[in-house]
Amino acid sequence: MTEVDERNARGFSRRALLGAFGAGALTVAGAGTATALVVGRAPSAHPASAQYPFHGAVQQGVTTPMQRSLHFAALDITTTTRDAVITMLQRWSAAAAAMTTGQPIGGTRTSTGGYDAPPDDSGEAMDLATSGLTITVGFGPTLFRDVAGHDRFGLAGQQPSCLHELPHFPGDQVDPLISSGDLCIQACADDPQVAVHAVRNLVRIAFGTATVRWTQAGFGASSSTSTEQPTPRNLFGFKDGTNNIMGGDQAALDDYVWVQPADEPQWMAGGTYLAVRKIRMILETWDRTSLREQEGVFGRTRSEGAPLSGGDEFTTVDLAATGRGTDPLVPADSHLAVAHPSSNNGVRILRRAYNYTAGSDRLGRIDAGLFFLAFVRDLDTQFIPMQMRLSRSDRMNEYVRYQSSAAFAIPSGLRGPDDWFGRALFEATA
Amino acid sequence: MTEVDERNARGFSRRALLGAFGAGALTVAGAGTATALVVGRAPSAHPASAQYPFHGAVQQGVTTPMQRSLHFAALDITTTTRDAVITMLQRWSAAAAAMTTGQPIGGTRTSTGGYDAPPDDSGEAMDLATSGLTITVGFGPTLFRDVAGHDRFGLAGQQPSCLHELPHFPGDQVDPLISSGDLCIQACADDPQVAVHAVRNLVRIAFGTATVRWTQAGFGASSSTSTEQPTPRNLFGFKDGTNNIMGGDQAALDDYVWVQPADEPQWMAGGTYLAVRKIRMILETWDRTSLREQEGVFGRTRSEGAPLSGGDEFTTVDLAATGRGTDPLVPADSHLAVAHPSSNNGVRILRRAYNYTAGSDRLGRIDAGLFFLAFVRDLDTQFIPMQMRLSRSDRMNEYVRYQSSAAFAIPSGLRGPDDWFGRALFEATA
Repeated sequence: MTEVDERNARGFSRRALLGAFGAGALTVAGAGTATALVVGRAPSAHPASAQYPFHGAVQQGVTTPMQRSLHFAALDITTTTRDAVITMLQRWSAAAAAMTTGQPIGGTRTSTGGYDAPPDDSGEAMDLATSGLTITVGFGPTLFRDVAGHDRFGLAGQQPSCLHELPHFPGDQVDPLISSGDLCIQACADDPQVAVHAVRNLVRIAFGTATVRWTQAGFGASSSTSTEQPTPRNLFGFKDGTNNIMGGDQAALDDYVWVQPADEPQWMAGGTYLAVRKIRMILETWDRTSLREQEGVFGRTRSEGAPLSGGDEFTTVDLAATGRGTDPLVPADSHLAVAHPSSNNGVRILRRAYNYTAGSDRLGRIDAGLFFLAFVRDLDTQFIPMQMRLSRSDRMNEYVRYQSSAAFAIPSGLRGPDDWFGRALFEATA
Repeated sequence: MTEVDERNARGFSRRALLGAFGAGALTVAGAGTATALVVGRAPSAHPASAQYPFHGAVQQGVTTPMQRSLHFAALDITTTTRDAVITMLQRWSAAAAAMTTGQPIGGTRTSTGGYDAPPDDSGEAMDLATSGLTITVGFGPTLFRDVAGHDRFGLAGQQPSCLHELPHFPGDQVDPLISSGDLCIQACADDPQVAVHAVRNLVRIAFGTATVRWTQAGFGASSSTSTEQPTPRNLFGFKDGTNNIMGGDQAALDDYVWVQPADEPQWMAGGTYLAVRKIRMILETWDRTSLREQEGVFGRTRSEGAPLSGGDEFTTVDLAATGRGTDPLVPADSHLAVAHPSSNNGVRILRRAYNYTAGSDRLGRIDAGLFFLAFVRDLDTQFIPMQMRLSRSDRMNEYVRYQSSAAFAIPSGLRGPDDWFGRALFEATA
């Protein structure tokens, strides 16, 4: 056990967690504080042996300092039986608890069924370090009601009002085959093979109950969730996420990320909502654009990420500052200006975006961009109005195409080995 | 400068390399030794600051200990002008020398053309460590003659006899759109963003001269080229490449990997040939197969990678050993038996394969497998007969589909800042 593991284990022993929960002392703020502690302790460059506690009041993989690789999957449920869904979620919970703590599924290297059965675990992560693996599970709107509005599993009465398909935003060129989904799995790890292994094995468990609808791999964390991490760069070459909500900023997390106990529905307390947007970047066009135009698009300098109104990366932007003329130094249609809280009624979001590449298209153009993941307390009041504003006004739109869109409810964390993803939802509808 | 950088810089200063070459003392064996020295010094888990010398008698990225991420691109030349090809190769050489030593292309953070020109470097690796980046460039058969046999750039007289498109192997389901190519770029780094950045910027430089034909990303090195690295696992969950030629095994490298001074053509001395095969793995079928069958397919145990004839991973296999019955313990049609040098006239190859995933297909099946790269001294006597034998007899064929195929000549290394990829070829045909 490494020093980091030991600290995590000391800080987050099962007993301590169960004790806190058992005492009925659970508050979302308290839960968030526990998460923030992990953030504060984890080094910014995760050691290969990094492990994050799987059990807790909130799910891991939201405020966890971003790992370098993502594997994301959306699944559709193929069964009509509520109990089969519950069984799958229970098996997912046990498997996720094992994998995120470096254990193979099934607990041994070979199948519990012996040599004449397939191994429980597909094995490709067998010798690899935990690599900071986190597994986060979410529920899409179609888990509650199918497209005809039918209540599929008796859950419709508990569907959150903000959990619906994202609207069509201006300019969207969304492909439904890589959008939406009944369930989602977000696996993040510093080693891509560890993330791929996690998704593959959860998909295996789902066989007969759910099937993969689409997947997405990502790399090179394109936004920071920890003040100990430098701000990463997206494939436009610019720092991305300078003003992101950090995992240690409990007040902002309570205001903008975690669903609070007073919010409806009750089963979502300690949860959050995930907005997913696959944003292809037209790199060939961008790469032939002058540095002046590029900096105008972002509203920041490329080298340092400083706002064009002056200072360094973390200097507060002055959207009104002008140079010799009357035009603002930060163009009004720059990404910085349009996405700024002051342009969005003070609203903020927690970004957790990854860069992606997927080969080249038939014209030899690189198929690459940003797989944008944002966690918010309410999709209707935070993400959707901000995205609508960006889609209408952001000068960056000239260089990007929105290709997919999805929304998921991320239920609260699992309180211990007997808890499972979404138990509160299924109990509320039993 | 970190300690590792310092050691590399001390051991491989430009002066030392030029001195050795200037003395006319260059032999392929000597070059190999220099490479082996790098291998010996580099820790098995590359530090983020790892750098490999770009200049040397052989290209980097062949015997370099495998990094965790690959980005590979095949390009087609769109110009008909020999000088334009030369200019591009010269610009590639300067850019590769910069990027592999952690410098941006153009030498500064902004364009040499100032704010009103596009930046020379796309910028997304600006704050990232070198991450052990290696860049390797190769020439496909169609660089020498087009499919009609026409000599495109006056190079046909120097086309190596073994450099032709790979034949159709039994069972091949090869897609020509992701096969072949006039040129290839192999970028390997521990950070995928660093590898992606390298390919993207070389493709930018090629604009107007060559265009991307296809690309492939890979992760989780699926074979080892250093005795200091543990043998990695492929997506079947088995160790892969136990008997690989290691970067320090100079005798085997001279016999099976590096083209020797006595070989034809002369310009290939210090070079090697690359065989590329994209092998999709049918994971859903594999995952429902018993451990007994899986181990029979490989001829090895899954947990330790030991041959089924006994011992540990590195025990020499006994293909004749039988158990209680008369059948060999290692099935005659197992991958181990069919690929073994004793089944292939003693031939060996240097494997440098990566795992890949590319989403899921429309049936919800994972699109994943092995991007197989093998370096050999001669394709006709080494790779092709071995692949023919495997395609005919390997029991593993039931679980894989060969989807693409390509062959490239990897010319010798660049001797210094004035050298460039393929200079000996172009000078031999001037």
